[in-house]
Amino acid sequence: MIDSTARIAKNTIIGKNVAIGAYTIIHSGVSIGDNSIIGPFCELGVSCSGMGRHVLKIGKDSIIRSHSVFYKNSIFGKSLSTGHAVIVRENTQSGPGLQVGCNSEIQGHCTFGRFVKMQSNVFIPQGTKLGNFVWIMPGVCFTNDPFPPSNIRKGSSVGDYACVGAGALILPGVHIGTDSLVAAHSCVTRNVAAHSVVAGVPAKRFKNIDEIYLDKEKTIRAYPWRRHFHSKYPAFEIKKMKKK
Amino acid sequence: MIDSTARIAKNTIIGKNVAIGAYTIIHSGVSIGDNSIIGPFCELGVSCSGMGRHVLKIGKDSIIRSHSVFYKNSIFGKSLSTGHAVIVRENTQSGPGLQVGCNSEIQGHCTFGRFVKMQSNVFIPQGTKLGNFVWIMPGVCFTNDPFPPSNIRKGSSVGDYACVGAGALILPGVHIGTDSLVAAHSCVTRNVAAHSVVAGVPAKRFKNIDEIYLDKEKTIRAYPWRRHFHSKYPAFEIKKMKKK
Amino acid sequence: MIDSTARIAKNTIIGKNVAIGAYTIIHSGVSIGDNSIIGPFCELGVSCSGMGRHVLKIGKDSIIRSHSVFYKNSIFGKSLSTGHAVIVRENTQSGPGLQVGCNSEIQGHCTFGRFVKMQSNVFIPQGTKLGNFVWIMPGVCFTNDPFPPSNIRKGSSVGDYACVGAGALILPGVHIGTDSLVAAHSCVTRNVAAHSVVAGVPAKRFKNIDEIYLDKEKTIRAYPWRRHFHSKYPAFEIKKMKKK
Repeated sequence: MIDSTARIAKNTIIGKNVAIGAYTIIHSGVSIGDNSIIGPFCELGVSCSGMGRHVLKIGKDSIIRSHSVFYKNSIFGKSLSTGHAVIVRENTQSGPGLQVGCNSEIQGHCTFGRFVKMQSNVFIPQGTKLGNFVWIMPGVCFTNDPFPPSNIRKGSSVGDYACVGAGALILPGVHIGTDSLVAAHSCVTRNVAAHSVVAGVPAKRFKNIDEIYLDKEKTIRAYPWRRHFHSKYPAFEIKKMKKK
Repeated sequence: MIDSTARIAKNTIIGKNVAIGAYTIIHSGVSIGDNSIIGPFCELGVSCSGMGRHVLKIGKDSIIRSHSVFYKNSIFGKSLSTGHAVIVRENTQSGPGLQVGCNSEIQGHCTFGRFVKMQSNVFIPQGTKLGNFVWIMPGVCFTNDPFPPSNIRKGSSVGDYACVGAGALILPGVHIGTDSLVAAHSCVTRNVAAHSVVAGVPAKRFKNIDEIYLDKEKTIRAYPWRRHFHSKYPAFEIKKMKKK
Repeated sequence: MIDSTARIAKNTIIGKNVAIGAYTIIHSGVSIGDNSIIGPFCELGVSCSGMGRHVLKIGKDSIIRSHSVFYKNSIFGKSLSTGHAVIVRENTQSGPGLQVGCNSEIQGHCTFGRFVKMQSNVFIPQGTKLGNFVWIMPGVCFTNDPFPPSNIRKGSSVGDYACVGAGALILPGVHIGTDSLVAAHSCVTRNVAAHSVVAGVPAKRFKNIDEIYLDKEKTIRAYPWRRHFHSKYPAFEIKKMKKK
């Protein structure tokens, strides 16, 4: 299941039942957990200057799709799943279940909780912190330099279960609270309170999350989404999601 | 013209005069029409779970540029043309003349008419329907989930000859009418009436399309664009474009 | 240092101490300066119809990261640096020190001054002119067609030391003045005066650049940034940046 054209360096740990696609390059220091799939045209374990621990650890049951690039010095829990052409730089730490959409870039020096799901074309600069069960929709751009260009770095953070809508832009140093919703195409310039919905340019609070319903009869509240949406989460996590 | 390093599976149909670039992978079930060019580092015919017909059909006279990925179970008419690093997932159906710009992603389960032209960095989620001669400018993001994250899917649709300007974001389930124009950077939250121009966040109607002129003397109307812009369309289509 | 799988055409000039990654394709007419690094899965010197001079010149001390594509007929000064998966088309001219972020696309027929730095996911259409020491932050989209789709092309231009914030959209034919700042997520519809800060949709002037401070005590002005930010510029350039 390891393609004959894949190049695998000596100091690597490749788990059982791992598939590696054609032409993919695995540098030394990379460890890939059991039952993982790495697509073709990938490069895993790229070095960069000033690195500490020269290791890239991919948890078991992971899938990294074609044309993706991962740098050294990062750790991912099990069941990592990426789209095609994903770029993940050094010093990224993530819990299990991280999902990264096609063409997304994580610039490293980031921390992600459990089951973070970001979709296509998302940009995550250094210093960003995402909590557990966070959703980042397509085309979202986080920033970290309040006076570009400068040497100041203020990463933003997102609380558990919050969702950032498609095409939103998040200014540096902002905190987006637990269970909150940032509407699509918003420009978030200030902290977003927990359980609130913000929208617009600049984004303003216009609702509490429990004022939005999935149906016209207003029988099912859309938020917090963790009460009704459990697609692809493990059973023991769903139990906790409902309870909270 | 087929590079010696290209990997072509057995159950494929490669037309006459087809060029395939270095390292490109063509999986079984792929059919490529005559006189087509596939660039290097591509992967065509990727499988995914739950697929029906395991076929990818690329019409004749097509060009797919390097680093692009196409899944199985899609059909494209003749003269498909893509930029580099394009991703097109399963269950995409398109008429002839589809153009997809660099870094664009089509998530599948989409239907496109004839001569749809989307430029670079466009994101098309599942359920999107684009009519004939539609233009999607760079950086446009369509969406399909009205309560993210949820299991509800409401694809948007665009009428014939409509144009969506650069960086616009289209909310789920919206219909953009025939011949209309969505200004750049708009956020479209409601249906756009035919022959109208919308702009802003949220997008509001501010003109009829026949109120915009190409020149200061107001002698040539800019819209509907099909009356004056015919670059690269076939002669028999241009005739129809002018008449309407 | 040239990988055995790299394909290098005959009519190329490869400088001293150049490293070329696995599977990378270098077409005829490409010249790469001394001490440069080209990553794996790249294609340099792609042809296209209607080209003039069939040469691609990469200055010395350059680095082009993996999965990038450069067309023929462009010239780059020394110390070019790109992220991964960058696309640069024909007829691009740049001074030294050009930096292009991951997933960015330059559509060619562009002119860049010295030490232009654009970050990830930037889109530069034909006819765009960027001055010296310009900064383009992530996700910025320039445009060039005032009546899309049409045959009219009005490239935008950016003056020396100006900075365009993340996610901004620049309408066709706009000039962004020297030392000015375009706030993140703005939609620039008109010229931006030198030394001014614009923000919003559409972008409006709301400050002079010298009214923004790095610190609460208002001791250090954030702009013009060239007075305090000199990271990675050559010593002789920094001298000039401070003086102006």
